[in-house]
Amino acid sequence: MSDHPDSVLAVHEHIDINFDRHLEATRAMLRQRSISADGTGIEEMALMLSDWLTRLGGESQVVATPGNPVVFGRFDVGAPQTLMIYGMYDTMPVEGEQWLCDPFEGAILDLPDVGRSIVARGSENSKGPLAAFLNVLESWQAVHGTLPVNIKIVVEGEEELGSPSLPAFVRDNASELAADHGMYPYMNQTRSGKPIFRLGFKGILFLELRVRGGAWGGPVDRAAHSSTAVWFDSPTILMVHALASLFSQDQRRILIDGFYDNVAPISDDDLALLEKLADTFDAAEVLAQEGIHKFKWDLEGVELLKKYLFEPSLNIAGLISGDVGPGAKTILPHDAFAKIGFRLVPNQDPDRILRLLKEHFQRHGFSQIDVHLHDVTHWSRTPVSSVPVQAAIQATRDFGLEPEVWPTHAGSAPISLFTDDLGIPMTPMGLGHGGGAHGPNEYITVQGLQLCEKSLASFLARYVEMTAAGLNAEDG
Amino acid sequence: MSDHPDSVLAVHEHIDINFDRHLEATRAMLRQRSISADGTGIEEMALMLSDWLTRLGGESQVVATPGNPVVFGRFDVGAPQTLMIYGMYDTMPVEGEQWLCDPFEGAILDLPDVGRSIVARGSENSKGPLAAFLNVLESWQAVHGTLPVNIKIVVEGEEELGSPSLPAFVRDNASELAADHGMYPYMNQTRSGKPIFRLGFKGILFLELRVRGGAWGGPVDRAAHSSTAVWFDSPTILMVHALASLFSQDQRRILIDGFYDNVAPISDDDLALLEKLADTFDAAEVLAQEGIHKFKWDLEGVELLKKYLFEPSLNIAGLISGDVGPGAKTILPHDAFAKIGFRLVPNQDPDRILRLLKEHFQRHGFSQIDVHLHDVTHWSRTPVSSVPVQAAIQATRDFGLEPEVWPTHAGSAPISLFTDDLGIPMTPMGLGHGGGAHGPNEYITVQGLQLCEKSLASFLARYVEMTAAGLNAEDG
Repeated sequence: MSDHPDSVLAVHEHIDINFDRHLEATRAMLRQRSISADGTGIEEMALMLSDWLTRLGGESQVVATPGNPVVFGRFDVGAPQTLMIYGMYDTMPVEGEQWLCDPFEGAILDLPDVGRSIVARGSENSKGPLAAFLNVLESWQAVHGTLPVNIKIVVEGEEELGSPSLPAFVRDNASELAADHGMYPYMNQTRSGKPIFRLGFKGILFLELRVRGGAWGGPVDRAAHSSTAVWFDSPTILMVHALASLFSQDQRRILIDGFYDNVAPISDDDLALLEKLADTFDAAEVLAQEGIHKFKWDLEGVELLKKYLFEPSLNIAGLISGDVGPGAKTILPHDAFAKIGFRLVPNQDPDRILRLLKEHFQRHGFSQIDVHLHDVTHWSRTPVSSVPVQAAIQATRDFGLEPEVWPTHAGSAPISLFTDDLGIPMTPMGLGHGGGAHGPNEYITVQGLQLCEKSLASFLARYVEMTAAGLNAEDG
Repeated sequence: MSDHPDSVLAVHEHIDINFDRHLEATRAMLRQRSISADGTGIEEMALMLSDWLTRLGGESQVVATPGNPVVFGRFDVGAPQTLMIYGMYDTMPVEGEQWLCDPFEGAILDLPDVGRSIVARGSENSKGPLAAFLNVLESWQAVHGTLPVNIKIVVEGEEELGSPSLPAFVRDNASELAADHGMYPYMNQTRSGKPIFRLGFKGILFLELRVRGGAWGGPVDRAAHSSTAVWFDSPTILMVHALASLFSQDQRRILIDGFYDNVAPISDDDLALLEKLADTFDAAEVLAQEGIHKFKWDLEGVELLKKYLFEPSLNIAGLISGDVGPGAKTILPHDAFAKIGFRLVPNQDPDRILRLLKEHFQRHGFSQIDVHLHDVTHWSRTPVSSVPVQAAIQATRDFGLEPEVWPTHAGSAPISLFTDDLGIPMTPMGLGHGGGAHGPNEYITVQGLQLCEKSLASFLARYVEMTAAGLNAEDG
């Protein structure tokens, strides 16, 4: 079933023999807290990671930013190709969650259905796969005395905050960051074992909207008594009208003029991927997993997937005004606050969308709303035909597994900084299974971590093979 | 300037001579906490009040309800007329407020601009005026050996909760509560000394609206990732559309079919009161006090007052959905919650308005919204020509003061239980000044308390005089 290149077999064997040690190194990273939301352990984690890179023989820097530092490592082995690795060392916090164990102990538990697993914050997202990659660098060097490609590795500490410092880091270090191709380690198998590749991300434009009373009317700096609501404007009602004006009542259409203008048509390559996906895509399973009764669209198969992956959206993530406690406080609130997030697709420009939103508010009588840009991440895409994606697919097949390839993720990640700003085609890679990211009992299986390491080694082997064969010319 | 009936002069003198003791009795009531929101001191306060009524020679009962008890006292002196007194012994809590003193000490402080004052929770609203009335009962009996009218007094302990138990108490004891007229003690002078009477209240219909995902779509019991917003309905967006559908965008009109149908035309009596009011009504002062830049109406004088007093309104008091903390949590929320309050005017029926709202939601595609009745209080009105109002006006003039008479309050109070359910015309009465109700440093002036007692004695005298003269026939 498996058919690995010779160069990698000894590496796999080294991983097997040394796996207990690799497992401990991974758990040590998970015991070090690194919560970007409140800064807990961030400095310590950056130093621990940088030390590890140095011990592996790389040059490493902890680069200060206005936020959390970026760890930047380099392994220059004089190879013709340079591979960029993107990772993150920060994690979500643990708040109001019921865990089976201390989430910062690197505990190993036998979980129902999935088996022996490391249960820890950051195990799946994403210190586990990152540790797996570093363990591969160690094993490859132990077996071959060197690495098969030059490696550059950028590990940020603000991914869970929306990567606010990464764009400037990339811009300021563009020449240092030059590379031929890139990869970000991830454990991409579902619980049932299916490997999934998603070759891009939607963009996100996350905004805070606030309105309070002022020259236009309404209470300014404190709530008024609600008996005066007949006399005075309500910032709450203004916000409600403004938000409603953005969505058709059936929630199927964003009503901002020009919003859909630049949405790219679906390419033939992507359509082919979608049609293949539709064979295995199980809409009922999606509903069951989410605990949701129905989609808002009466569509199935390819058409339903098109909505998910190729249609931009707008969401209200949070909304508050006035008194929301128990009882009946009879107030006319003086302000209202909302958080909204656009998901953008090729070729939507977030700057343009922000401008269209502001124009919409102006035109429809909602100029009182203050629009604050919280966070922006561009969409990104890597063609299925590109070298790193083909290397990832082939390395997966080496393990007897046929990957399911999605043209894009419906979520967002700052990969466009590499693909678009630096021109580096990026692929996700990594077998193994994990779950629970952003929630309680986040885990990766122990067996999955071992498989992840072997698959990343195989990726390096296939990547070198393909670039040696001159596949470079086909990059998209 | 003043021209008091003979029967009251000796009572006034008794009040002056005994005022130190009256002041102490009032402070003792204010030292006893009675916070209906959390029950603190409620039982003790009800017993203290009932004891006081007994010591004054009344029959008194502490009547259990499903909530806080009602104190019901009776003084049957064989007089031809029976006067109903409504009061409250509960207060708002003290939460997150900066006070100049312990709010439960009955402290006497010299306040800037207003002078020596009792600074205590419940002093103005409404244990101070209630104590003043009980002190009057003592003084009248001390001077005359009896009372000039039979008195029934109902003091509830849930006014600040919206009087949930009072309707059933009134219904269950209707025959016991029979009376000719009624009065509720209040200190009605502004800081500058102008006495104001408001002869009615708007009704309130306070509702909680909730929507969550379900058979219709949307996340059901937990938030979904916002990348799925393109696939799934949002309860938040549904709530926003539903709320927006209730209001014209200029916030001047409620868009529920039939909402304004039963609004009574303004009577000639009320129009006359409005026209008189307009002479002294200062719209700019209202704006200055509220810290608000402008009204939503381009109106002034009588027309602006008409909106305030005779037009029903709808307010959003609170609204929440999803994540409203710092950061950018990318969730599609599973529920949304709002608190809305109607202010209703004659002859709007809250049951009908509730039905119209539900029908509106049904008709406009918002049947998913659960409408929960939190609180209802009917509007009430007492005609200016009625005996108790005329007695209150005359008693005020006895002190050389010309009252400003408003046809109604724009706020709400459960007075309709007396005026409509029991058919007892009710008037507010009481000179003196206080302020800060529901906030920090609630106060009544010491001099105002003394004046309040004298004015309530004068009210009794004028009331007896007018009923003896056969003014009963004119009751509205």
